[in-house]
Amino acid sequence: MQHRSFADARCPIARSLDVVGEWWSILILRDAFRGVRRFDDFQESLGIARNMLSRRLKRLVDAGLLETRPYSARPPRHEYRLTDKGRDFYPVLMTLMDWGNRWARRRHSAVPLSRLTREPLDPVLIDRATGQPITPATVVMRYPGSGAAS
Amino acid sequence: MQHRSFADARCPIARSLDVVGEWWSILILRDAFRGVRRFDDFQESLGIARNMLSRRLKRLVDAGLLETRPYSARPPRHEYRLTDKGRDFYPVLMTLMDWGNRWARRRHSAVPLSRLTREPLDPVLIDRATGQPITPATVVMRYPGSGAAS
Repeated sequence: MQHRSFADARCPIARSLDVVGEWWSILILRDAFRGVRRFDDFQESLGIARNMLSRRLKRLVDAGLLETRPYSARPPRHEYRLTDKGRDFYPVLMTLMDWGNRWARRRHSAVPLSRLTREPLDPVLIDRATGQPITPATVVMRYPGSGAAS
Repeated sequence: MQHRSFADARCPIARSLDVVGEWWSILILRDAFRGVRRFDDFQESLGIARNMLSRRLKRLVDAGLLETRPYSARPPRHEYRLTDKGRDFYPVLMTLMDWGNRWARRRHSAVPLSRLTREPLDPVLIDRATGQPITPATVVMRYPGSGAAS
């Protein structure tokens, strides 16, 4: 549903959105992380028309976030698996999940827990090198063509 | 551009997408974090039609991520400021940015740096309580109506 391509934007957020395509793609990736692999299972989970789902899966395959693997020769059937590029999208899903559980609360909600403690996760984005939380106060942006960062 | 509301989804990712609305909203929020506040400045940054920008800003205000503040009485003018709810969206933007700089590389790209070291950030999402990185291997989901987590 985009009216303009952001593929060449200097902003990596815009480029990410361009690659992923649209909201539905994010829900498809969510399902893939839950272990959904087959067309009919995506369809049942998402409840969208088959031709729309087809297009969206194809887009994610073309973009390199999913890959197809045959699981039956007769009839020929394939399933969809996350690639490294797709798996690396996990933090985006988890920050969206965390925001939704804080700001769009519902009584009946899926909640992510630590596998270690079985307590609800409290996600915080940090910089690996410094250990600092990543906030508007701890980040400066460097823009192309400018030596300085502001 | 959605065909269905996810407002009551049990999945917090779907609810977040429902609140935020669409890709453009994410770029508006990005600009707001960069300090953009006025309609004309958003318009210049995003290059979209004024009526479309109006609608998108209104949606973000209605959703509580932005709020308006008057800055001129005559003529009456207001600017757009991030609320706490909007500011809390920052980790989503930063994970999208990081993914884009890894998987949709461009020679000329904005790059986030640590304010402390001026080195490129290496964002990692951890659980505050355990300090563990949040990955598919360290997370279990608890679904509503099931005592168990899987």
